[in-house]
Amino acid sequence: MGKTVVKLIKGMKFLGQGKSGHSIIMDSALASGGSDSAARPMEALFASLGGCTGMDVVSILRKMKTEPKSLEIEIEDERATDYPKVVTKLHLNYHVTGKVSEENLKKAIHLSLTKYCPIANSFAGIAEITSSYVIKP
Amino acid sequence: MGKTVVKLIKGMKFLGQGKSGHSIIMDSALASGGSDSAARPMEALFASLGGCTGMDVVSILRKMKTEPKSLEIEIEDERATDYPKVVTKLHLNYHVTGKVSEENLKKAIHLSLTKYCPIANSFAGIAEITSSYVIKP
Repeated sequence: MGKTVVKLIKGMKFLGQGKSGHSIIMDSALASGGSDSAARPMEALFASLGGCTGMDVVSILRKMKTEPKSLEIEIEDERATDYPKVVTKLHLNYHVTGKVSEENLKKAIHLSLTKYCPIANSFAGIAEITSSYVIKP
Repeated sequence: MGKTVVKLIKGMKFLGQGKSGHSIIMDSALASGGSDSAARPMEALFASLGGCTGMDVVSILRKMKTEPKSLEIEIEDERATDYPKVVTKLHLNYHVTGKVSEENLKKAIHLSLTKYCPIANSFAGIAEITSSYVIKP
């Protein structure tokens, strides 16, 4: 069992902290009573998905002895129009540069999205997840 | 449709950025090849849940003309033991200090978890979510 503590700092600014001791700061937009000093919770959510699968992919590629020059994941989300506006679709587009073979990248993405990444696989229970990739030298 | 970009900075360190332009930094533990310089993706995930429902609760309480002196949410997560170790249970314990009535806090938490918070309500599709609260003067 894990534990995360999330504290109100001021206004709408919150600090989240888990076992590592490092913090995540979140704030809402001015229009929502916040001071726009940090990312929104929804942005932290999607960033966590990208970080999770990104770490998998880079670590699998390294095990295959291929180091990407760069790795960037674009996540497009679709949400229900009515409250609570749940996440309905997620598309992850992996942009890789460097000497990475298509076969290896495909395998790494597949392993992350179907086997290793707890965030993608948790989301898979509620949203349709699709992926694509682009490799450039 | 929203868009989030998550980039590999170095090693296992990733930066995530959504529409607000603010960043979320993530890193893995030394044992996982990272440099332990920032929160883990799973920590960012649970922090996002706490930030989301925390913002709801504080904003609903303020609309009820009650300003909590402090608000802290402890999130306990349970995950499957086998890969991909999906999230199976979440318990949120809201700690509030100040002149906040039990009735108002209960209502605010209920509205957030069942109506307003997209993260809690997305998770509700995959994990059992429970909550509790503690009010101190």
